[in-house]
Amino acid sequence: MKARVHVMLKDGVLDPQGEAVRHALGALGFSGVEGVRQGKVIELDLADGTSEAEIGEMCEKLLANTVIESYRIELL
Amino acid sequence: MKARVHVMLKDGVLDPQGEAVRHALGALGFSGVEGVRQGKVIELDLADGTSEAEIGEMCEKLLANTVIESYRIELL
Repeated sequence: MKARVHVMLKDGVLDPQGEAVRHALGALGFSGVEGVRQGKVIELDLADGTSEAEIGEMCEKLLANTVIESYRIELL
Repeated sequence: MKARVHVMLKDGVLDPQGEAVRHALGALGFSGVEGVRQGKVIELDLADGTSEAEIGEMCEKLLANTVIESYRIELL
């Protein structure tokens, strides 16, 4: 089975990487880019029967820093 | 309007970051993790009426390195 985990910085946490992308898009002539947030997406190839709870544990322990990041699990 | 761009390494391109995550999950006791690929997700807050073609151009010019990365646009 496959699962996808999205990890984004929480609202209110400064995202200098996203800010740099926003600035670079403006410099390239793309107008109307009001905000950019950058995060990670992790695609996991797992043994069949792995529970969503177990994937949540992977996020809590390794994939996301839950102090500043939120995560979302998508089973494919 | 909002759009989300997913950028992943193309199949066949080595992903050392994903490999490190796979190894770390194994070391933490999660068995059955057969493969991990890590990519980026970029959330764009755009002026209303920005076309998908324009977002594609942003990807080609800045957000993805199309030699080794593929991208997928999702309008929200």
